[in-house]
Amino acid sequence: MMKLAVLGSTGSIGSQTLDVVSRDPGRYEITGLAAGTNVGLLLEQAKRWKPKVVSVATKELAEQIRIDLPPGTRVAYGEQGLIEVAAESGADFAMCALIGSVGLKSTLAAIDAGVSIGLANKETLVTAGHIVMKRAADKGVAIYPIDSEHSAIFQCLNGEDRRAVKRLILTASGGSFRDRTRDELASVTVEDALKHPNWSMGAKITIDSATMVNKGLEVIEAHWLFDLPYDKIEVVLHPESIVHSMVEFADTSVIAQLGNPDMRVPIQYALTYPQRQPSPASPLDLVKAGALHFREMNFARYPCLRMAYEAGRAGGTAPTVFNAANEVAVARFLKGEIPFLAIETIIERLLAKHVATADPDLDAILDVDAQTRAEAAALK
Amino acid sequence: MMKLAVLGSTGSIGSQTLDVVSRDPGRYEITGLAAGTNVGLLLEQAKRWKPKVVSVATKELAEQIRIDLPPGTRVAYGEQGLIEVAAESGADFAMCALIGSVGLKSTLAAIDAGVSIGLANKETLVTAGHIVMKRAADKGVAIYPIDSEHSAIFQCLNGEDRRAVKRLILTASGGSFRDRTRDELASVTVEDALKHPNWSMGAKITIDSATMVNKGLEVIEAHWLFDLPYDKIEVVLHPESIVHSMVEFADTSVIAQLGNPDMRVPIQYALTYPQRQPSPASPLDLVKAGALHFREMNFARYPCLRMAYEAGRAGGTAPTVFNAANEVAVARFLKGEIPFLAIETIIERLLAKHVATADPDLDAILDVDAQTRAEAAALK
Repeated sequence: MMKLAVLGSTGSIGSQTLDVVSRDPGRYEITGLAAGTNVGLLLEQAKRWKPKVVSVATKELAEQIRIDLPPGTRVAYGEQGLIEVAAESGADFAMCALIGSVGLKSTLAAIDAGVSIGLANKETLVTAGHIVMKRAADKGVAIYPIDSEHSAIFQCLNGEDRRAVKRLILTASGGSFRDRTRDELASVTVEDALKHPNWSMGAKITIDSATMVNKGLEVIEAHWLFDLPYDKIEVVLHPESIVHSMVEFADTSVIAQLGNPDMRVPIQYALTYPQRQPSPASPLDLVKAGALHFREMNFARYPCLRMAYEAGRAGGTAPTVFNAANEVAVARFLKGEIPFLAIETIIERLLAKHVATADPDLDAILDVDAQTRAEAAALK
Repeated sequence: MMKLAVLGSTGSIGSQTLDVVSRDPGRYEITGLAAGTNVGLLLEQAKRWKPKVVSVATKELAEQIRIDLPPGTRVAYGEQGLIEVAAESGADFAMCALIGSVGLKSTLAAIDAGVSIGLANKETLVTAGHIVMKRAADKGVAIYPIDSEHSAIFQCLNGEDRRAVKRLILTASGGSFRDRTRDELASVTVEDALKHPNWSMGAKITIDSATMVNKGLEVIEAHWLFDLPYDKIEVVLHPESIVHSMVEFADTSVIAQLGNPDMRVPIQYALTYPQRQPSPASPLDLVKAGALHFREMNFARYPCLRMAYEAGRAGGTAPTVFNAANEVAVARFLKGEIPFLAIETIIERLLAKHVATADPDLDAILDVDAQTRAEAAALK
């Protein structure tokens, strides 16, 4: 039985993880659940799964729910609470699905405790890939990607000699604005942006999909996850989001993973690897799909993707700036403070003025993160 | 260094095998070459590769080339010659690329000698899959598929638990007549049929592609190679021939192998497995391809495929009848003796009257093969 901690249990990936778990009774035990402020759902989850520990954002929220928790479930909070859930709940697998930079320390704590990682938090590798991957290698801890693209690549690499990899081909839907010109983008609204054509996702990631920041973060993640230079990581537009990503090998063979968009498939694969179990996802019907299209990625159309490659290649703290500037800019766009195209302007300006520190430690990363956020919030 | 025997060395697969070999000097030693009647090319090959033994169709041809062979190369002929090349030339890998039922005994001899098999001869598994796969399992001999479809499936199964396979999805281009109606097929000519849209192949296999007999044989082969019931083997039309085949797993993930049509890729993969080496094939450009289409397979449009499933499910000698009837019918069509649609009529009539023998031995198979050929040749 797998002992599982879920960080971000009330979010999209966390909820779907518990859905996967609920369909295979006897396979999993939930040892810890960490949420932010959605204490209503967290309490429901705690009552069902009876974890050893739950964690919430603040001491106040912890006090608020303590009385309603099932016997045997203790409550923690804040960063220490996340670490308790990840590393001290007795889990042997931590699903790290927190949003933003908040997930970093708990993921490292889990790695230090020898806990396998299901990584659904982009920022962990984007800002601290050099620390996380080295720590995981030192501890012999496996990091399983949860993103559909990275899971696809991970699946395509199954049984293969990594040295024979010629390039990774990440697919990108193009987001909700893929058919609009740059000129048309100037006036798009929040409501327009949140209509993603293929995946049902949160607001932040839907905007990141429209700006291609999301794909940029995935490129940087892929660099760390699969230990490949940026020259060997390509992005191709694939509007149907059926081919989740591909690997081209030395012999020109391309191995691809396909399926209907359903995050429960990569979640479950990470949990059951190297096995595969039946899934509630609907089987792919390629005849019904009819055609799969591929178009060239255009860096002029999607400057955020170009900037992601530049930040990734610059390394050090540059990807932290890219990510933090974007997080704040997207939040400001969602609040109606700035137009859509200002997201990329803010990233561009902050990246341009940043002097990257090579091989930064966690404190340096968090400093740059905080400083970038302050600057991004203040930019006119 | 791999010691390699090539049976059918002057044919398409054989020549491409030697092309692959020539690009990686020092990796291979050619121990034997077997051809039929193309002694000119065989002599060239023998001079270049200096095998221990070559084999030709007849004693007369053997006598004819003996004087021109390099020192140290002996010549054999007929069925015994094939067996010498396959099993007695010191090879540890035999590329079995003979056309038709003639390849069966030499392949079995290679298996008995513990020689790994690259199987490019469809009839071996179609007519004697139950014998060949059992013999290979008993001897611990690996059978590597050379067909692009089976190689694709083999690649997609890399590192996977076979028990999690939900179905194999073989792709079919639809052949040179895929856009014609049944009515239009009645009057097509040999010249029309030989224009295959994607692959450059021999006449027999191009016709088999247009009738879908080729795909039917592949379905039966897949049944034996991957030990799966026919219910788990599907065929989908894919006009571009870029997705070479796919595997759907229990979790709904579909793994596909893609590439430009180039038989040197599956040939090389069989030779270098589990490694992958650089290949002279042109890399796949999905953006240039633009779109990959998938259409439902239609058994009414392609009755030969339906008959292949029926023959496969009937088992025993039924696939032998299917194959032998087709071989003769195609030969008659190519000679202008019968119209295109008579190919399927001949197969249908001979299958209908055949009473399948269960678990036939080699002699029974060869008897049915010979008898079917005689009948197919005589049918009006």
